Amino acid sequence: MADKQERLAKWRAQLEKALERFPERKKSFTTSSGIELKTVYTDLDLPPAVDDFPLPGEFPYTRGVQRNMYRGRLWTMRQYAGFATAEESNERYKYLLSQGQTGLSVAFDLPTQIGLDSDHPLADGEVGKVGVAIDSLADMEVLFKDIPLDKVSTSMTINAPAMVLLAMYLVVAEKQGVDWASLKGTIQNDILKEYVARGTYIFPPEPSLKIITDIFAFCAENVPNWNTISISGYHIREAGATAVQEIAYTLANAICYVESAIKAGLNVDDFAPRLSFFFNAHSNFFEEIAKFRAARKLWAEIMRHRFGAQNPKSMLLRFHTQTGGSTLTAQQPDNNIVRVALQALSAVLGGTQSLHTNSRDEALALPSEESVRIALRTQQIIAHETGVADVVDPLGGSYYVESLTAEIEKRVKEELAKIDAMGGAVTAINSGYIQRQIQDSAYQFQMAVETKEQIIVGVNQFTVEEETQPDLLRVDPSVQAAQIRRLQELKSRRDSAKVRQALDAVAAAAREGANLFPPVLDAVRSYATLGEICGVLREVYGEYQAKDLI
Amino acid sequence: MADKQERLAKWRAQLEKALERFPERKKSFTTSSGIELKTVYTDLDLPPAVDDFPLPGEFPYTRGVQRNMYRGRLWTMRQYAGFATAEESNERYKYLLSQGQTGLSVAFDLPTQIGLDSDHPLADGEVGKVGVAIDSLADMEVLFKDIPLDKVSTSMTINAPAMVLLAMYLVVAEKQGVDWASLKGTIQNDILKEYVARGTYIFPPEPSLKIITDIFAFCAENVPNWNTISISGYHIREAGATAVQEIAYTLANAICYVESAIKAGLNVDDFAPRLSFFFNAHSNFFEEIAKFRAARKLWAEIMRHRFGAQNPKSMLLRFHTQTGGSTLTAQQPDNNIVRVALQALSAVLGGTQSLHTNSRDEALALPSEESVRIALRTQQIIAHETGVADVVDPLGGSYYVESLTAEIEKRVKEELAKIDAMGGAVTAINSGYIQRQIQDSAYQFQMAVETKEQIIVGVNQFTVEEETQPDLLRVDPSVQAAQIRRLQELKSRRDSAKVRQALDAVAAAAREGANLFPPVLDAVRSYATLGEICGVLREVYGEYQAKDLI
Repeated sequence: MADKQERLAKWRAQLEKALERFPERKKSFTTSSGIELKTVYTDLDLPPAVDDFPLPGEFPYTRGVQRNMYRGRLWTMRQYAGFATAEESNERYKYLLSQGQTGLSVAFDLPTQIGLDSDHPLADGEVGKVGVAIDSLADMEVLFKDIPLDKVSTSMTINAPAMVLLAMYLVVAEKQGVDWASLKGTIQNDILKEYVARGTYIFPPEPSLKIITDIFAFCAENVPNWNTISISGYHIREAGATAVQEIAYTLANAICYVESAIKAGLNVDDFAPRLSFFFNAHSNFFEEIAKFRAARKLWAEIMRHRFGAQNPKSMLLRFHTQTGGSTLTAQQPDNNIVRVALQALSAVLGGTQSLHTNSRDEALALPSEESVRIALRTQQIIAHETGVADVVDPLGGSYYVESLTAEIEKRVKEELAKIDAMGGAVTAINSGYIQRQIQDSAYQFQMAVETKEQIIVGVNQFTVEEETQPDLLRVDPSVQAAQIRRLQELKSRRDSAKVRQALDAVAAAAREGANLFPPVLDAVRSYATLGEICGVLREVYGEYQAKDLI
Repeated sequence: MADKQERLAKWRAQLEKALERFPERKKSFTTSSGIELKTVYTDLDLPPAVDDFPLPGEFPYTRGVQRNMYRGRLWTMRQYAGFATAEESNERYKYLLSQGQTGLSVAFDLPTQIGLDSDHPLADGEVGKVGVAIDSLADMEVLFKDIPLDKVSTSMTINAPAMVLLAMYLVVAEKQGVDWASLKGTIQNDILKEYVARGTYIFPPEPSLKIITDIFAFCAENVPNWNTISISGYHIREAGATAVQEIAYTLANAICYVESAIKAGLNVDDFAPRLSFFFNAHSNFFEEIAKFRAARKLWAEIMRHRFGAQNPKSMLLRFHTQTGGSTLTAQQPDNNIVRVALQALSAVLGGTQSLHTNSRDEALALPSEESVRIALRTQQIIAHETGVADVVDPLGGSYYVESLTAEIEKRVKEELAKIDAMGGAVTAINSGYIQRQIQDSAYQFQMAVETKEQIIVGVNQFTVEEETQPDLLRVDPSVQAAQIRRLQELKSRRDSAKVRQALDAVAAAAREGANLFPPVLDAVRSYATLGEICGVLREVYGEYQAKDLI
């Protein structure tokens, strides 16, 4: 040990001498989280934890949530998709499945995400634009037409109205004759990060947490294999957070959800096994891998030590990953294929359970069929040609990666302690603390790009004069009118009295504090619309107003 | 230790039990070299060598040839390019330099590579096709017009006639007023792998080795910073060799060159610092990284222990890397961008000194300007956006990578011992042993593809019905006639007596066994053509005939 330190000191002295004549490319080298990097890492940098002989599939799961990981089953290849009408999206899903995709991921349009029907004045111009427009069960039936729900797993990016969309999915399954117990998938259902970073909230925090807890409780009994939440760092990162902040704020939100559910009387081991996570795979390759490893360890320890979970399944941080949308450039869009490939590799080396690889043209428009195919092929090449899925946690033991994992863990813990001291995630969000921290990081990154300390290929260096514009997919403006027509036809055809009755039952449950899920299911069955169901809840719960940050 | 082994045994038993119900994707997982992979690697798998505390820039250089590697200077981004005429190639080089490329790499057409002028009957149909046609100094002057040779480093893929092309380069430098001592670059000059795998040989092994040794001797004195050879595993790998075979046969050839030079009376430390290598970055991600690390250690030990080198520079395995051309698919060519990005990353993580990233359409045709740009951008993204260049040997210590490095080292040593026992590389090549070993590996790979044990995305799985044909760059068929016309004009204009005299001097030196370089330089200066110079050497040395393998 002393001998090694001596050798390293001698080595450093020789390097310093050489640097006087040949200075390095940068004055200091740091990760996205500002972790300063040494020239080289050795076993002297290994954190003591590594000596604990961690194995995958064992607490604290740093090396992976399963013993044999991808040797058993590859990660789920799940491309986020959806646009225009349910028909068109259904066609895209079938295309993706025919190309070897192994899971579905539904993108909803903005009106759907904030619980408005397509004929709402605020929906104007947004119907079917960033995702598919779903107004009622009727649309959901079309969306999953000829897709057997017991054969696929489906992720739905829906938050404030998550219960309503999940209820629609359950009724479609019912109609297909598929047992709810065999349904697999996720709703995002993570409202806290909407206040922080994404903006598609409806209700204030308290009733929002109540709805989430209702979903936990209902699914634990009735939809046992469904992931009831996907606690999301993705959008926090996209808003400008560092890797450390992404994990810290996601875990802070996760702690809040667990606390709410326990406060509502749920047993931690009844719902925690179905909590899932969603992270970003950004560009700083090794920091991302270390981030995923650190997140697993942190969550396992939080669940065991803070919440006293007994079931190992409650301790597993299982996560979906999407490559970093904000890292894509509109310039030279084919370069994005490269970025996505490297980011996807970091997600796989970090042990993700499912993965969306961005399409090269996502910085410009909805991805074309060809672009989506290349993105999917990226995952297939990593899975089948590179051999990286053949060994579990291949970077385990790397002096650099282990050291970085420990450093990220330490910094996340410090941030979590701060948030705890403030009184938890809701207080930290309400006070604007988390938002300000993210804004600071975003500002620093922007400055680094402007000073060219951070080079973005094709943007602030290696630019070219002219760009050939790729074929861009645009949503037909006639989609909105057609969707509104369908909605009106539905309303004229359904049993209005039954709808009214069902909506009243939802309102009653909301007022009384009963579990909302059963009356929402009935309302969905009666073809009450998303806007109607969310409307009665708005009346009871009120709406959240974003405060300007101080 | 015993405790760890016990824990691992228990862990394994639990895994085995689970596998009875959930079998894995494959019966066994192996690398391209047939190394069987464990499910997970732990510190129990670390080879003893790792305890030796290896540091980069120190013997045996497993962790890199410099102390701070890419923190000082990034690898050289060097795209292999050249086609049609010297004018067109010159234009492409200027384009690449304008796009941020940092080194040149000249592709010559087949007639040039086998020492034939463009008007030779055997050249018909091949002039300017796979590279640029160079008949004489006049073409070379055009090829490097307005490119200051003291500012770029240039690699030339030329073997049997390497001395002639290097002589032309030196005379162009002379005419630019550039001191030979400031020239940087490489000639491939590796004839043994031509017999094994590539086929552009002229002379039999003995005079070929003599020419190579002459180059070593001449450059040691006159062109001290020029890499006199690029001992190439690339083509051996492309012919179907495994990673282990690539390193083993390359090092066997390298040993042969060193032996020849020592036998000719050269001091090892006078020429060995200018030996360089050229490897392939194939698809099996971690095996490639381990391969580069193992190769560095093996070479350092060979130079120190076998050849008694004293100068540390003689022990450094410095290498250029090209991503694996044979891994590219004609189907869905954009997928190649993904393959190349991942392969390039493995080369960088393996510590390459320079890198060519293949263009997506190289499986189909000469790369278009746009494709070449994406390939270069791939390197720039890895260099500037991923942070992987900020820490030296980031995978050092990884249980898996260290174990794989040691296993590759062991297998290469075994293969080298076999070749030593046969009497060295020339005997192993003459007997067809090496060629047969490579053919066996190629056959096994082909079988794995046919049985779909090895999936190639877009080829034997994930295929699509229709392909949009990308714009392909084709060489204009008029190039040949124009090049022949230029050659004839040159011949009518030059001083024929001087040419004849210079060629006679080359022949005399060849017969007498004197160093060929000075008379070849004079012949080049007189505008004797490549075909003429190689022609007189053919008369003295004879030509190599490939034997059919038994």
